[in-house]
Formats: sequence, C-alpha cells, structure tokens
Amino acid sequence: MNVYKVTILPDNIQISVQENSTLKKVFTENGIKFEFPCGGMGKCKKCKVRVISKNSSEEVLACQYKVVEEVKVEISKKEQKYEILSEGVEKKVALDPLIKKQYRELPLPSLEDNRDDWKRLDNIGLKPKLRILRELPEILRKSNYKVTVSIWNDEVLAVEKGDTSRELLGMAFDIGTTTIAGYLINLSTGSEIARVSALNPQTKYGADVISRINLASETPDGLEKLHAEVINEINNLIDKALRGTDFKREDIYAVTTVGNTTMQHLFLKVQPKHLALAPYVPVFSEPMVVDASELGIDINPNGKVFTLPNIAGFVGADTVGAALACEMDKYDDLRLLIDIGTNGEMVLGTKERLFACSTAAGPAFEGAHIACGMRGATGAIDHAKIDGEVKYTVIGGVEPVGICGSGLLDIVAELLKVGIVDKKGRILKPEELSGEGEIYKDRIREINGIRAFIIKENTSTGQPVYINQKDIRELQLAKGAIAAGIEILLNTFGAKVGDIKEVFLAGAFGNYLNPESACKIGLIPPELEGRIKPVGNAAGTGAKLALVSEKEYERALALSRKIHYIELSAVSEFSRIFAKKIEF
Amino acid sequence: MNVYKVTILPDNIQISVQENSTLKKVFTENGIKFEFPCGGMGKCKKCKVRVISKNSSEEVLACQYKVVEEVKVEISKKEQKYEILSEGVEKKVALDPLIKKQYRELPLPSLEDNRDDWKRLDNIGLKPKLRILRELPEILRKSNYKVTVSIWNDEVLAVEKGDTSRELLGMAFDIGTTTIAGYLINLSTGSEIARVSALNPQTKYGADVISRINLASETPDGLEKLHAEVINEINNLIDKALRGTDFKREDIYAVTTVGNTTMQHLFLKVQPKHLALAPYVPVFSEPMVVDASELGIDINPNGKVFTLPNIAGFVGADTVGAALACEMDKYDDLRLLIDIGTNGEMVLGTKERLFACSTAAGPAFEGAHIACGMRGATGAIDHAKIDGEVKYTVIGGVEPVGICGSGLLDIVAELLKVGIVDKKGRILKPEELSGEGEIYKDRIREINGIRAFIIKENTSTGQPVYINQKDIRELQLAKGAIAAGIEILLNTFGAKVGDIKEVFLAGAFGNYLNPESACKIGLIPPELEGRIKPVGNAAGTGAKLALVSEKEYERALALSRKIHYIELSAVSEFSRIFAKKIEF
Repeated sequence: MNVYKVTILPDNIQISVQENSTLKKVFTENGIKFEFPCGGMGKCKKCKVRVISKNSSEEVLACQYKVVEEVKVEISKKEQKYEILSEGVEKKVALDPLIKKQYRELPLPSLEDNRDDWKRLDNIGLKPKLRILRELPEILRKSNYKVTVSIWNDEVLAVEKGDTSRELLGMAFDIGTTTIAGYLINLSTGSEIARVSALNPQTKYGADVISRINLASETPDGLEKLHAEVINEINNLIDKALRGTDFKREDIYAVTTVGNTTMQHLFLKVQPKHLALAPYVPVFSEPMVVDASELGIDINPNGKVFTLPNIAGFVGADTVGAALACEMDKYDDLRLLIDIGTNGEMVLGTKERLFACSTAAGPAFEGAHIACGMRGATGAIDHAKIDGEVKYTVIGGVEPVGICGSGLLDIVAELLKVGIVDKKGRILKPEELSGEGEIYKDRIREINGIRAFIIKENTSTGQPVYINQKDIRELQLAKGAIAAGIEILLNTFGAKVGDIKEVFLAGAFGNYLNPESACKIGLIPPELEGRIKPVGNAAGTGAKLALVSEKEYERALALSRKIHYIELSAVSEFSRIFAKKIEF
Repeated sequence: MNVYKVTILPDNIQISVQENSTLKKVFTENGIKFEFPCGGMGKCKKCKVRVISKNSSEEVLACQYKVVEEVKVEISKKEQKYEILSEGVEKKVALDPLIKKQYRELPLPSLEDNRDDWKRLDNIGLKPKLRILRELPEILRKSNYKVTVSIWNDEVLAVEKGDTSRELLGMAFDIGTTTIAGYLINLSTGSEIARVSALNPQTKYGADVISRINLASETPDGLEKLHAEVINEINNLIDKALRGTDFKREDIYAVTTVGNTTMQHLFLKVQPKHLALAPYVPVFSEPMVVDASELGIDINPNGKVFTLPNIAGFVGADTVGAALACEMDKYDDLRLLIDIGTNGEMVLGTKERLFACSTAAGPAFEGAHIACGMRGATGAIDHAKIDGEVKYTVIGGVEPVGICGSGLLDIVAELLKVGIVDKKGRILKPEELSGEGEIYKDRIREINGIRAFIIKENTSTGQPVYINQKDIRELQLAKGAIAAGIEILLNTFGAKVGDIKEVFLAGAFGNYLNPESACKIGLIPPELEGRIKPVGNAAGTGAKLALVSEKEYERALALSRKIHYIELSAVSEFSRIFAKKIEF
C-alpha cells in the first residue's frame, strides 16, 4: 500500500498517510483540532477543507475525501482569537473579520477545463463586479494563477497577484462629537497595531450636535463642509496609525464606525436637518456598507466602510457599539448601561427586552458651560475631597487650570457633604455656614456677580479655579436628566432600582468618575453604588468587535433592532420626574 | 396575546400570527409578494383578498383586515400578461418585470411614530444606497410623503415624488456581431412600443468576432473603441425607439441584453483576448447586473443593465435567450435548436439534459466569403428554383444584385437536383452535363479563373449574378460543420436523428430558408424535414422575456447552468465526422 505526504496548512504540519485514508482519520489520529458536526456522515457539509494537489485545487469534505496522492490540505483557521483586555471590558472573540482574504493556487486552463476566469476562481455563489472582471484575465495570467481573493459577504472585492493574505488590516473609529478615536487592527492576527485620537475638527463650528445640524441645514455648503472635515481627519488618523509600521494604506480593507446619529449622518453626507426639529426624524438607522472610495476614505480602493446601525435620532451607533461591548443581549437579569459623552445615552434591560433613551446631559461633564470647566486633559482637577481642607488631584500632576467632569462631580458631592451646598443646590452665603462648613467661609465669594466657591486661589493663569452657582445648576440639569431617564426606563421595563444587577459606565468620564460622588449627587441611584463598573470607551470597543468578527457585527445589527427607543419628550411624566431629580 | 395560524393560498404558506395583526403586516413581515398601491391606507381598494374562516368566506382589504382567528387567505395571482406573438414563438407570461415600481402614500411622522425616513418607506429587508439617503429627506417632504419607489431585487433604485408608477419602460437588446436589434417595452402594461435595429458599428473593424477580438487585444485602445461603438449605437437605438412617443429616456429603468460571448465582453469592456486562443477561455459567463450609468447607457440614471449569462466562449447569452424563447427546458422528448447568425450555435436535449456546441459556420449564410453574397436585403435573391429554367425571387421585387443565405441554399440544392453539382460539390464542366442538366450548359463559365454557374446575366450593376466553385466549397464547410455538430450532440446525448421531435431554426436566415433545400444539401438531416419550425430572432425574444418577467429571467439563468457545453475541438471524432458531412 502506498504512503503519501499530506501537508496541513497554514501550520505546515507534515504527515505520512496510507493510501485511501480519509482526512477525518488523518486529523483524528494526528491530533489536529477539527470538528465533524455530523460525525463524519457527509451530511452537514461543515467539514469543508481545500485540497491542493499537483493539478488541482478544490473544496472537499474532510470526512469523505480519501488521500490517493501527495496533497496539501488547507484548514481555515477559526481558532484565532481577538482579545480585548482594556478599560473594563474583557472579551475574546474568534477572529473572523468582516472582510476575508484567501490565497488560492488555481488549476491552469485546458481544453478539458476551459471554465471562464471567474469560475476558475472558484467563487461559487459570489457575484462578480465589472471592475474585477476587467482586471481579472491579466492578474490570473501574470500571477500564474496564484492569487489572493478578498471577499465581503457575497462580493469579491479584489483579486491580487500572489499571496497577500497577511496584508489585511482594518480600522475601527468612534466618531464622537468632540473626539475621534481610531484603532488599527491586524485582521490576519487579531493584534491591535495602533490607537490614535484627535479632536473632531467639526468642533470649530460648534461644540454640540445641534450647532452642527444647524450649520448643515442652514448654509448651502454646510453639510459638505462638515462632511469634508470628518473625512479629512479620519484620513489623518489612518496616516498617524500607520506611521512607523511596515504597512501601507492599501493593506486596510475594512473600516467600521460608530458615532451618534448626527455624526453618522455627517460622516455619510446625509442631511441631519430633521434631527433637530420635532419629531426628530433621522434619515436612516440601517447599518450602511459603502465603498471607501465613494466616501474618499484613503484605504485600499476596493475597501469597504461599515457604519454600525443607529437606533433613533439621539441614540446612535455609539450606543449600539457600547451595548455590544457590554453584551447587553446576554443577561437574564437587569443591566443598565450609561454612556456619557457629549450626550448621555442609556440602555436598560435583559436579553429578552431592552429599552434606550437619550438626554442632552453630557456637555457639563465635558466641561462645557462650566465657568472653569475643561475636558479631562493635563491641568484638569479630576478628583477632589473636602476634609478639613480642600484636597484635589490634577491630571498630569501640574498646577490646576480648570475642572473636568469627574472633578466637578467630586467637588459638588463634597460641598453637599460639608453643607456648603444645600439639597436645592444653593451655595450658602458665608454667614449661613455652620458646623464643619464654617472653616471654608473665606472661599465663598462673588465672581462676576455670581456666588462661587474657590478651589485654588492663585494659579499660573492668574485666575482662581472655582465652581459657581451657575455651574451647580448646570450639573443639576445634567444629573437630573440622566436620573429621570433611568427612572423612566425602569418604569417602562416594569422594574425597580434594586433589580439592576450592574451599571456599566461608558465614556472617558465614566472611567474617571468616583462612583461614590455620582451616587451622592443622585446621578446614579445611591443603592447601586457597589454595582458600578466603568467600561471605558465601550462604543469604540464595539466598533473593534464588529471589525474583527462577523458574528459580533451581526450581533450589533440584532441589538439595534432589539433595543426599543423611548422618546423622552413624548413621555408625559418626564417633566415631573425631571423636576424631582434636579434636587440633590 | 393569542397566536393564530394563517395559511396563504394558493402556495399553502403557513404562518403563526399574533392576534390583531393586519394581513399587510403578515405579508410584509413574511416576504409574501403583495402590493399595497396606496401604502395600506385603505383607500385604493387594490389589496383585496379572500379570507376563509371556519364559518365564512369573504373579500376583505388586506391592509385593514385583522387576524382574530385561524384563517386561510387566498391571494389571486397577478392577471397582467406579456404576450409574444411573433416570428413563430407564441407565449404568454405574467407581467412581473425585473424592476418594479410601487406608489406609496406614507403616514406622516409624529412623536409617536418617529421612525427614520428610510423605515417610513416601508422597505423591510431592502438595503439603502447612500445616493438614495442623500436625496430622501427632501423628496419625502416635498411630495408630502407620497412617493413611487423603484425596486430591483433587494435594492431601492429610486424614490420619486408622486405617482410615477406608469412611467416604467424597459428595453431588450440582441447585440449581434452584424446587427443590433432593440425592443422598447412598456413594463407597466406589457405592450411593445417600438422595435428598432441597426448595423453593429463594430463591423467597420471586421465582419467576424475574431477580427474584433484581435483589435481589442492587439491595439492599446482597441477594446475601449469597440466598447464605445456598441454603447453609442445602443444609445442611438434608444433615441430612435422613443421618437414619436410620449416617453423619455428617464422612463427606462431596465435594459436586458443578449449577444454572443465576444459581444458581451465588448459591451461590458471586458478583454475578450483569450476567447481567440486555445483553450478559448472567457473572462465570465455569469449574468451581470450593472448600473446603466457605469456603462454610459442613457436611460434613467438609477436604471440597471442585465446581461443574460453566457455558456462558454462560443456559446453566448444569445443562445441562452433562444433556448429560453424555445423553452428547451420543458420538453420530455428531444428538441434541437439551431441558431444561425454570424456563428452557428446548437442546443440539443430534453428538460432533463441539454448539450450545446458552436461552429464558426454562420458567415457563409450571411453572404460573407461568397462571390455574389450579400445579407438578406433589397436586391438579394432569397429563393430559387431550377426547373426547365432558372427562376428566383428577389427581396424588394427589384432586379437582383446578389444572393443571400437562403438563396444560396436553394440554388445549390437545385443544382444538385438537376445534376450540375455532384455529390462531392464539384460544378461539372459543360461537356460533362447530360440529361436535364444539358439545357443549362451555357450558364457554366469561368469567371476570374473559377468555374461558375450564372443565375442572371445582365444586371443593373453590369455584372452577372452567379455562384462559383469556391462558393460551393464555403457552403460545404458551413453545412458540414453544422451537420457534424448535430451528430456529435446526438452522440453525446445518446440518441438518433429520428428521436428529434422538432427542430427550432432561429435567426433571420432560419426564417427565410427553404427547409426542403436545407435537408437536400444535408445542412439538416433529411428525415427531419417535416419537423422544422422557424422561430425568428429567438435570442431577442429571450431578452424580451427576461425583461418582462423575473421568472423568465431566473429561468434563463437556470438554463445557462443546465446546458452542458461540448467543445468540438476537444472531441476526437469531430474531424472525421466533419469530413464526412462536407459531401452532399
């Protein structure tokens, strides 16, 4: 009986095999991990492998194919994992990117096998694009029929000469109103190559979404301008991420994006006008798949851009991404996700039912409309304690120049604790202070005609860092809106605060805030204090997951359909609950 | 909430439905094709169905009826028919064009119903294109949410203001090597508006496909040039077809094309180079769907071009179209289809098995390489009889200037009959003639050193019309190739000539030829003489059928996969059979 060499690819394992052994036998006897769901009956067709012999390359069922010559057997790797181990989300998913590459050595044409070039590619069930057909005859013949095929869904995106299967990158973007974050990922290994971010250049036209929508709808080239800004910055970030690596723009075949609904509209140059007018109707919520070249995204010209789906006008793909990262679709008992960026979105529910709502609560937490407010950057007071004296920490360990969201939260919580601010949110006059509060009398002063509490008197800017009565009102509105949103979601679901088993706090602010302070001021119901889990930029994590795993992408789509949107402005009791929640 | 079983008749589809769901919801959510012309407002009364419950049977509006018990719902199948009653093919198909239009009156948005614009269109399961999303908000609001949606497959091609559902035309093209024929069809009524044709302008670069392939592959802009010629002529034909009607180019949303494989490559600007070199590999055979704008076809900018599939390098979509028109997929017993154009293609088989082959036999029948040959136009001798004298008919009833294919066939058959041409195909010398032949002695003469038989001595051109020895050799090669093809198809199928129940003869030539002559010279086996049915331009008929009926289009795709191609140059006995068939 003859013995033949069988080489298992891609790991290049060489095995000597007796004639007529099935591949199932070969795998089983040599410890090669491979699943035969129907037990090797040839029924389920799940055990397909590619067998490459001297004269042919074909897909066969491993359970049925018998070795009768020297062959190479290509097993598709479903084993490789993409691992996220950052910012509170720990997750492993099988590497199975949206866009796949396959190296193929095709049999040469002959009179006996004069299939057309397209069929020779062995793309059964895939549809040819004209562009590909126009290049195909030359690519096949110049590569001696050894090519790499890039596939998305049922579409062949590219056919390249030789084996380029290792040159397959993707980039995930979280397009925030304020910040754009990008993650460059090697889709053939699952490793993260670079992480980059930049200010959303649209901020120069206004800090919040409403100012962008107004520009887009009221000036003739407003939409075009805002669109160009974000595309341009994304191209800059791609450049930045590639810098210092051996990869090129052309190696990137897939881009996923998340962002709020307005950012998604502007990114695709779709008019967001009606998002700002009741009844707040978006143009689309569907996940979009767009040619990168159509959008002017400088990656491989055959690459695709995938925007995750939105849920409603003010609950966007960023929330879908965050919900995916937090696996809101897997819990039997109640979970709450709060993503505080420039806006604040919330999702509450179990794997059976999910509800979401949005509040324009965020800007205060990003330092907007706050006298000494600033984003969480060097010089920002990020944590504070008032405990006989006013103690604080500053990002970067420098002299303070302002207060970021988490600092604001701590300061107000502490002022409440020591009785300088009352339940209604009023900063007491120096003469009203008593007990512990009395020692801070000198710190209360009118600045620009508004009562303020001084944190730090002499700073390098020459100005004091302080918090004033108006700041506290802003914070009350913001926390009141979120607290009211939580209560309405709970009412809609039919549950009580105590039923919530875990609170996922997403966004940079969520990562920095002190849960104790958040509960003290009533941003989050106090009884949940021990159940708060910061999850960092969960929206961005979701965009990454969808990029590296088709299953996670599909899961995001399913989530977007499953999450039921609650329009707070259409809920009659919203004003009443909101008014109640404004108090501390 | 209760769930009831709903059975959809006549297809017997069973669905579990929640109480109080409307039938509109049931149909939409379960992919049951049904039109709600007014968008489900209960106004147009077009969505009538019969609901049969345990105790009653009544006609209701599907958009209004709510399910409150187990029922059967009877949907009447569409009544409108497209009728083809020309050139030997008689066929009625349900009008169900590839591209469909639906007029919809959408509910206005409100805080209670603030679905996005796309969802409001009610396109469940359809994917939005960016282009559509960019126009959508304005179109919806300017039309007061009354729009017409054009749909192909799972793609929305256009959303138009108001009701444009009656403005839906399509055009079918048969792109022949020599002639391009076009048919303008009203896809909302099924009526044929115009029929136009023109010489394929590529003929100025060569009469046959090989000369076109050479130009495309050997000169730098050859492919571009040939492509531009055919696109340009198709645009001219569209203009011509619309002339004198109330319709505009923009009303045409769909174009179907058939043509041989080379013509299809040139039409799509795909390099046909390898079709001319063994092993004769096309780039593609798949049916292609291309944006009209990408090809520069001047119809509605959102329209689509559908090319029917090819079978192999020399059996193209024209043969698929002809096989569809002749319904080669429906017969229990054997049928033979011969389509003689510039090439000659044949299909033989039953609904179970079909085989096809191709021979370069055609040009002689189009007058090419024949001394006095010409196409079937005014002045061509189209029929002849030699019966004591030489009688003939001339197209247009004018003086003869040449001989077309059917005339050539008749003349040779008659010369054989009276003994002027022998079994080997030799024109006898005057002195060899005997019996009946003797009276034509004076008509045999050398012209340009080649023995010829004079049909008409003095013509208006000053030249005689004649047939010479070389013409007869050309005819022998052509008929020999076709006869050999038929024999090889029969051998492959495993049948005898007598098993063929019907011979469909397609192409202009097939319509004109005298079956008796075709059998006399052995182009078609003599025992089939009574079974020949001319079917005219069956390829064009196929293109029309695919345009007006999605089912017929799908049938064409199925036919292309079912027809097994026989490469004659790879059949070892071809030369032997061919040599044998050259004799009369």
